[in-house]
Amino acid sequence: MLVVMSKNASAGDIRNVISLIKSEGLTPHDIPGAIRTAIGVTGNTGAIHTERFAVLPGVVQVIRVTSPFKLVSRETKPENTTVKVGNAVFGGEELAIIAGPCAVESKQQIEDVILKLKDAGAKMIRGGVYKPRTSPYSFQGLGLKGLEILAEAREKSGLPFVTEVLDIEKLPEVADYADMLQIGARNMQNFPLLRSVGKTGKPVLLKRGISATLDEFFMAAEYILAEGNYNVVLCERGIRTFAKHTRFTLDISVIPTIKKLSHLPVIADPSHSGGERDKVLPLSLGSIGAGADGLIVEVHPEPDKAMLDGLQSLYPKQFEQLMDKIRTIAPAVERSL
Amino acid sequence: MLVVMSKNASAGDIRNVISLIKSEGLTPHDIPGAIRTAIGVTGNTGAIHTERFAVLPGVVQVIRVTSPFKLVSRETKPENTTVKVGNAVFGGEELAIIAGPCAVESKQQIEDVILKLKDAGAKMIRGGVYKPRTSPYSFQGLGLKGLEILAEAREKSGLPFVTEVLDIEKLPEVADYADMLQIGARNMQNFPLLRSVGKTGKPVLLKRGISATLDEFFMAAEYILAEGNYNVVLCERGIRTFAKHTRFTLDISVIPTIKKLSHLPVIADPSHSGGERDKVLPLSLGSIGAGADGLIVEVHPEPDKAMLDGLQSLYPKQFEQLMDKIRTIAPAVERSL
Amino acid sequence: MLVVMSKNASAGDIRNVISLIKSEGLTPHDIPGAIRTAIGVTGNTGAIHTERFAVLPGVVQVIRVTSPFKLVSRETKPENTTVKVGNAVFGGEELAIIAGPCAVESKQQIEDVILKLKDAGAKMIRGGVYKPRTSPYSFQGLGLKGLEILAEAREKSGLPFVTEVLDIEKLPEVADYADMLQIGARNMQNFPLLRSVGKTGKPVLLKRGISATLDEFFMAAEYILAEGNYNVVLCERGIRTFAKHTRFTLDISVIPTIKKLSHLPVIADPSHSGGERDKVLPLSLGSIGAGADGLIVEVHPEPDKAMLDGLQSLYPKQFEQLMDKIRTIAPAVERSL
Amino acid sequence: MLVVMSKNASAGDIRNVISLIKSEGLTPHDIPGAIRTAIGVTGNTGAIHTERFAVLPGVVQVIRVTSPFKLVSRETKPENTTVKVGNAVFGGEELAIIAGPCAVESKQQIEDVILKLKDAGAKMIRGGVYKPRTSPYSFQGLGLKGLEILAEAREKSGLPFVTEVLDIEKLPEVADYADMLQIGARNMQNFPLLRSVGKTGKPVLLKRGISATLDEFFMAAEYILAEGNYNVVLCERGIRTFAKHTRFTLDISVIPTIKKLSHLPVIADPSHSGGERDKVLPLSLGSIGAGADGLIVEVHPEPDKAMLDGLQSLYPKQFEQLMDKIRTIAPAVERSL
Repeated sequence: MLVVMSKNASAGDIRNVISLIKSEGLTPHDIPGAIRTAIGVTGNTGAIHTERFAVLPGVVQVIRVTSPFKLVSRETKPENTTVKVGNAVFGGEELAIIAGPCAVESKQQIEDVILKLKDAGAKMIRGGVYKPRTSPYSFQGLGLKGLEILAEAREKSGLPFVTEVLDIEKLPEVADYADMLQIGARNMQNFPLLRSVGKTGKPVLLKRGISATLDEFFMAAEYILAEGNYNVVLCERGIRTFAKHTRFTLDISVIPTIKKLSHLPVIADPSHSGGERDKVLPLSLGSIGAGADGLIVEVHPEPDKAMLDGLQSLYPKQFEQLMDKIRTIAPAVERSL
Repeated sequence: MLVVMSKNASAGDIRNVISLIKSEGLTPHDIPGAIRTAIGVTGNTGAIHTERFAVLPGVVQVIRVTSPFKLVSRETKPENTTVKVGNAVFGGEELAIIAGPCAVESKQQIEDVILKLKDAGAKMIRGGVYKPRTSPYSFQGLGLKGLEILAEAREKSGLPFVTEVLDIEKLPEVADYADMLQIGARNMQNFPLLRSVGKTGKPVLLKRGISATLDEFFMAAEYILAEGNYNVVLCERGIRTFAKHTRFTLDISVIPTIKKLSHLPVIADPSHSGGERDKVLPLSLGSIGAGADGLIVEVHPEPDKAMLDGLQSLYPKQFEQLMDKIRTIAPAVERSL
Repeated sequence: MLVVMSKNASAGDIRNVISLIKSEGLTPHDIPGAIRTAIGVTGNTGAIHTERFAVLPGVVQVIRVTSPFKLVSRETKPENTTVKVGNAVFGGEELAIIAGPCAVESKQQIEDVILKLKDAGAKMIRGGVYKPRTSPYSFQGLGLKGLEILAEAREKSGLPFVTEVLDIEKLPEVADYADMLQIGARNMQNFPLLRSVGKTGKPVLLKRGISATLDEFFMAAEYILAEGNYNVVLCERGIRTFAKHTRFTLDISVIPTIKKLSHLPVIADPSHSGGERDKVLPLSLGSIGAGADGLIVEVHPEPDKAMLDGLQSLYPKQFEQLMDKIRTIAPAVERSL
Repeated sequence: MLVVMSKNASAGDIRNVISLIKSEGLTPHDIPGAIRTAIGVTGNTGAIHTERFAVLPGVVQVIRVTSPFKLVSRETKPENTTVKVGNAVFGGEELAIIAGPCAVESKQQIEDVILKLKDAGAKMIRGGVYKPRTSPYSFQGLGLKGLEILAEAREKSGLPFVTEVLDIEKLPEVADYADMLQIGARNMQNFPLLRSVGKTGKPVLLKRGISATLDEFFMAAEYILAEGNYNVVLCERGIRTFAKHTRFTLDISVIPTIKKLSHLPVIADPSHSGGERDKVLPLSLGSIGAGADGLIVEVHPEPDKAMLDGLQSLYPKQFEQLMDKIRTIAPAVERSL
C-alpha cells in the first residue's frame, strides 16, 4: 500500500500517518519527493483497511498494490488450466465450440439441430431451460422437461450440454442433468449461488456481468475456486456502453488480458453481444483472432420461428460456414479446430 | 409497432411484410413517405415478435411503440403510491430519511448510534447483516445475530429497519425480523428472488443495478408488483460510467423521470454512489433538489473504526447537520422534513 | 512514481529497474513486502517516462503519484478564484445565473426575452451565433449578425453575454463582441483553440467534454491558465453513459470534487444534459444543492417555435419560477441569489 | 416520423397533433391501436421539427424514421468506395496496413524504421508532427521539420504518409506535404476543420471520437463528403467505457455495422485502443477477423526510447510477425495481404 500525502501536508500529518501504520503492526517507508511525500507500507499478510488512512488529514490518495484475487491469478498458478467436458477441452490447443438454441422449446427442435451441430464440429451443445427474463410476463423456460430433452439428445449425439442455473433451489436438479453449469451475466455477483456451484465440483461457465470490471469478474471466479472447484471457464459476452449499434459491446481486449493475468480459459459469446445474426460471424472471427479458447454460439433449426433470440440465431448452414472460417484462421493463433 | 423499410425495398419486400403482419392476426397500416415506406402495425394485445419482422428482406428497423412495463406505470395508476414502514412514509409530502451503518458489527455499535439518528429526524434505520462482498475472503455479515441486534434496537428506539436479503434460502429468516427488505444493486435482476420478496407482501427497497436502464429497473419492480406487492420503493444508488472521481455516478436525472413515468416512490443513496464522506452532503442535497422522496444514508458511530465503508460513513454530528440543511431546502421542492 | 514488481520477479529484474531509475538521475526506494516488492521513485521535477519502466521484465504496474495539473490545482492556489463578467461573479457567495436561448434567431427574439430574464435575476445572457451542429445540413447560426444583435441587447439591458467560439479564424470577431467566450463540449480538447482563447485574456466558460475524465477537464483548463488567463469558469453539462432516459447524464458528483481539487468556479448546464423542459427545474436545484456556483439555462420567448433545442428551453415564466426556487434553497448551501 | 400518444390522451390531444401536422404541410396517418394511438407523418423532404410535436399534450414519444446521414449511406451509394493513396487501396480486396511511430522524433528514427516496414508489407507510413496532447507541458511535435522528414522518407521508400492535422491554420502546410490527412478522435466533431479538409479533396483518415455514436461518426464523415470529397477512410480506435484493463475498448462490432450501412472503408487502430504492446497482435487479428479493411499500427525502431506511446509501439520484428499472422487469416475473410 502507498499513502500519498498532499503537497501541503504538515510534518504532523505525516507523523500521524506513520503512527497509524505502526499501530496496525505494519512498517512505514518514507519516500520524500521534490513535490510531495509518499509513504510505502509493508508487512501486511492480507488486505489493509485503506479507508482508515484515506480519511487522515493531509492524505491525498491511498493506492493498493496487491491485486485482490489469489486463486485465479497466473502468479499463483503459472500454467494454463484446462477444463474438460466430454470431448470439449477448454484452454488447450484445440478450440472448443459450444452451439445450440437460446432456449429449449421442444424435443423436435433439439433433435432437428443437434446432429448438424455435431457434424459441423461443435463439441458441446447449449440450451436454456430456466431463462432469466427482463419481463415477468415472458416465457421462462421449460424447466425439468427441458433438462430431460437435453439429456436425451446427449445420449443420441454423444455431445455434453451446458445450461444456465438461476438459483440455489433448482441447482440440485440442474446439476443432476447438466454437464456444465452456466452462471449468467445477471448472476455474476450472486455470491451464494457462486459458492453453491463451486461446491458441486462441476464445470462452470461463468459469464461476465455487463458492467463488471476485470477485477470483479476474477473475484466472482475466485468464489468458485475458493470452494475447491477449479473447473471454471470465463466467458466475455459484451459490456454495456453508450453505443447503440450493437446490443452489447463485445470487449475483445479482455481476452488477452485474462490470458495474461489468469490461468483460466476464456471463451466469447458473439450471439448475445451482437444481437443480430449478421454480426455473429465477424464477432466470432474477431474473438478467435484475439485469442479466445472457444465460442458459445446460438444456432436454431428455424430461427424465424424461435421463441427467443431468433434474430441473433444462426441457421445450421451458417454455423457450418462459420466453422469453416474458424478452421482457416485457427493456425494464425496457433490453434486447431 | 412500426416496420421501417429500406429506401431500396421492392414492392415485393413490402407485400411480404404486410402478409406476415396479416398472418399473425394483426393489421398493417401503410405509411408511404417521400423517401421510404413505413408500415404501422396494430391489433396486438401483448408484445409482438419484432424479430420475425426484423429479418425480412428490405426491413431497416422495427420500432416498438408500447412500453414493456404495466403495473409500475403511471398510465396504469395515475396517483402516487405511498409506502409506509412505521412512521416512515415514502412518496408522501414528508421526506423519509433512512440512516445507519453499512454493516451491523455489534450491539454496542447500533446502540451508540440509533438514538442520535432518531433525534436528528431519521424515520428508519439501516444495517447489513448479510453482505454481498466482491471478495470471498471479506467479512460477510453477522447473519441472524445481526437481525437480533437490529430487532432489539427497534424495540428501544421505535424505529423500523431495512436490511438486505441475498437469497431465497435466508428470506424467511430476514422477513421474520425486518420491516423492509432491501434488494441490492447486484440482485436487481435476480428474478427468482424478486418474485419471492413479492410474495412476502413486505415493503421492498429495490436498488437500481449499476448498469440498469430505466426500463430494466421498472421491469424488476414489475416482478414484485406482479406478485400483488405494491409496497416497492425504488432507489437510485449510482451507475457505472467512465468517471473515476466518484465511486459511481449518481444519476439524479432518473428521479424526475421515474416520478413522471411511474407512481412508485424513489429515494437516493448518496453514500454508495459518492464513496466518500465529503460527497454525502452535496449528493444528498442534490438528490432532494431533484425531487427524491427520501434518502438512505450511511452513518456510523465511529467511522474510522468501521469494518466496511467507513470512508463514506458520516459521523452522527454530520448527519445532524445534513438533516438541518435538508430542512432548509425542503420547501423549495414542496416537501417537509 | 511507484514501480510494482511481480510476485515472481527475480532479483535481477529488480536490479534492472533500479539501475534504470538511477540512470535517469532519480532515486529508487526499495519497499520489500511479504508478497511482492515495490520500488518508490523520487527526485523528478516533471513527469517521468513511466512507459520505459512498464516494459521491463518483472514489472506489473507503474503508478504515477503526482497529479498532472498544476495551475488549476488548489494545492497551487488554495483560495477560490472569482471570475467577474459585468455584475455576474462566478465563485463568490452569490450564485451566478446565465440564461437565454440556445441560438440567436432574430433581434425580435432576443428583445422579447432579455428584460424578462433580467427582471427574474439573470446576471448574464447566452445565445449561440456559431453553432456546432451534428449535421452539415442544419442551421449553423447567424454569425456576425447574431453578435450585433447580442451587443445591442447588452446595451439596452446592461447584461453581458457569453457565446461559443468554434475556431481560431472567427475568434477575433467573437472576442470583439462577447464578454465571455464559451468553449463547447466538442472542443474541450481542441488545444490550439484553448491556447488562443487563453491569449485573449477574456473570461472563458469551458464546458466539460461528454466523456472527459476530471483530469482531462482540468488539463484543458490548464491550457488556458498556462497562457496567463485565470478567468476560467468550468461547466458540467452531462456525460455520455448507457442511460437512455436522459440526453446526457448530469454528473453532479463532479461539482464537489472540482471545488475540492481546484480553485476554479464551476457551474452546471441543466438544459443540455436533461434535454427536455421538465428536467430543467429538478436538475437545476440538484446542481445548486450539490454546490454549483451558478447555472447556464436555456430560455426562449416561444420555445415551441425555437429553431434549436426548443424542447429543452424554458418559457420565461418557468424561468421566474426556477429563480424563486433557487432563492429558497440558496441558504442551505450558504449562498444567495 | 411517428408521434406516439399516451394511453390516456384525449381525442382533443390527437386532433391537436393532427392539426399541427397539417399546418406544417405534412400528411398525418392515424394508426389506432388496442392500447394507444400513434400518428404516422409523411410528406417531409428534409428533417421535421420533432420537438414541436414532443411538447404537445398527450404525446409520449416522437420517433424519427429517416436516418440523418445521406451521402455516406449505402442506400445512396450501394457499391463500396475505394480510397487510393499511392499503392495503398482502402476498401478493396487487399488489406491496407499503415505503420510507423506515434510521433516523428528525428530523421534518423524514421530512416531506421521505414524500409523495415515496407519490407514487411506496409503500404503507407504514419507519423505525428502536430500532436494533440492532454498536457500543455508535453512535447507537441516537430511541426514543419517533421513534415520534411516524412517527405524525404517517402521519396526514398516510395511509401506515402498520413499525418494528423489539428487546425485550419496549419492545414495548408500539412496538406502540402501529406498524402492523407488524419482527423484525430478529439477533432471528430471539429466541424470547421472537417469542412476544410473536405475542401482540399485529399484523402482523409477520420478517427472515431472516443464517445461517438455511429450516427455521429457518420455525420462527421458527411461533413467531408458534403464538400465533394469522397476519399474518406473511417477508423475505429476504441471507445471510452468503464473498463480499466485497456486504454480504450476497441469496438469491433462497429466494423460490420459500418460495412452494412455505409460504402466507406473502415480500418482499426489496435495501438491506441489497447495501449500496450502485448495487446496489439490480438486486437489486430480481432479487427481483421471482424472485417476491417486495414489497420494503422504503431511501430518504433526503439520503443523503449520513444518520446510518446513507446509502451504500445511494436518492435519492427514484431510487426513482421504480425504481418505474417494477418496473411494467414486474410483468406478467412476473403482478403489478401
